[in-house]
Amino acid sequence: MRTVTYSAACSLDGYIAGSDGSFDWLYFSPDVEELMGQFWSTVDAVLMGRKTWEFSAGQDFSAEESSGDGTAADLSGIPPVTTYLFSRTLPEAPDGVELVTSDGGGFVNRLKQQPGKGIFLMGGGELATSLFEAGAIDVVSLNVHPVLLGSGVPFFRPQSRRIALELTESRAIDGGCVLMTYRVRN
Amino acid sequence: MRTVTYSAACSLDGYIAGSDGSFDWLYFSPDVEELMGQFWSTVDAVLMGRKTWEFSAGQDFSAEESSGDGTAADLSGIPPVTTYLFSRTLPEAPDGVELVTSDGGGFVNRLKQQPGKGIFLMGGGELATSLFEAGAIDVVSLNVHPVLLGSGVPFFRPQSRRIALELTESRAIDGGCVLMTYRVRN
Repeated sequence: MRTVTYSAACSLDGYIAGSDGSFDWLYFSPDVEELMGQFWSTVDAVLMGRKTWEFSAGQDFSAEESSGDGTAADLSGIPPVTTYLFSRTLPEAPDGVELVTSDGGGFVNRLKQQPGKGIFLMGGGELATSLFEAGAIDVVSLNVHPVLLGSGVPFFRPQSRRIALELTESRAIDGGCVLMTYRVRN
Repeated sequence: MRTVTYSAACSLDGYIAGSDGSFDWLYFSPDVEELMGQFWSTVDAVLMGRKTWEFSAGQDFSAEESSGDGTAADLSGIPPVTTYLFSRTLPEAPDGVELVTSDGGGFVNRLKQQPGKGIFLMGGGELATSLFEAGAIDVVSLNVHPVLLGSGVPFFRPQSRRIALELTESRAIDGGCVLMTYRVRN
């Protein structure tokens, strides 16, 4: 069965973007480049909610513009993937993405049964919360940066149940960042 | 100058207690016992807000009762310390603690100038936020447990400014926990 990985860089206080959407605190290094290259080679599908999609659609992902800018670099030069955009309010699918208007958990659990590579759940928030609740997330991976942002977009949102995890990797990488990966005990 | 350390065990989603005050998710191990013994030998003062004090005062810290109970074990058998309780509403100091009703940041920055060992800021919340704002916290240390609690008492609360940190230690310990220690770049 395909694996859904929820992964992001975050601050020690758990934000994946500053309150003004800022990503200037992200630290790029050969370590991160290598990790991201490895990760992208294992996935062929990306899940995102409307807000994440609108944000990423507004970015310039050209290599020239992205150097030194973490978010942009996240998406530059990645292999072809199918992007599933979850929204109940968008009237039609934007170019290049598949719009999912049905129940997210049910859709993703069916998608996992289909043949394919790994599935990357991108961005924080409501979609992740609903997929946690549906038991659809298999791996959680964080690149914890050495900063307290104080406010912003949280990686984890409140949810109704406790979820047990199993630590599968933890190591310091360049820039005082700590990579932590967990298997979700669904 | 004395060092103020803000330290706790927390869930991966950043809670130091469940929404019902639960600590049953805390994992005790020889690793934790050794770390706590080392840490307590370096401090002679504890700072806490009213809610943390009320909670700890309601616990039974006898060794018999505390075995297997994380919070209780935290405080059993520790060397004598001076406890500073920060509250503007308590009418008088409870037995055995010094009541601080003045500005927390100013008080702690003066306390740091006095001779003594390290200072342990205990518990989550409002006191920590005001001490971060005042630049009074020197070290942040977390024992991240492999669980998502979903809700509860957060270790970090929203604050108005960004704070840079320097990673000084990161390592996996027993039970899938990850110890992360940072120096605050005040």
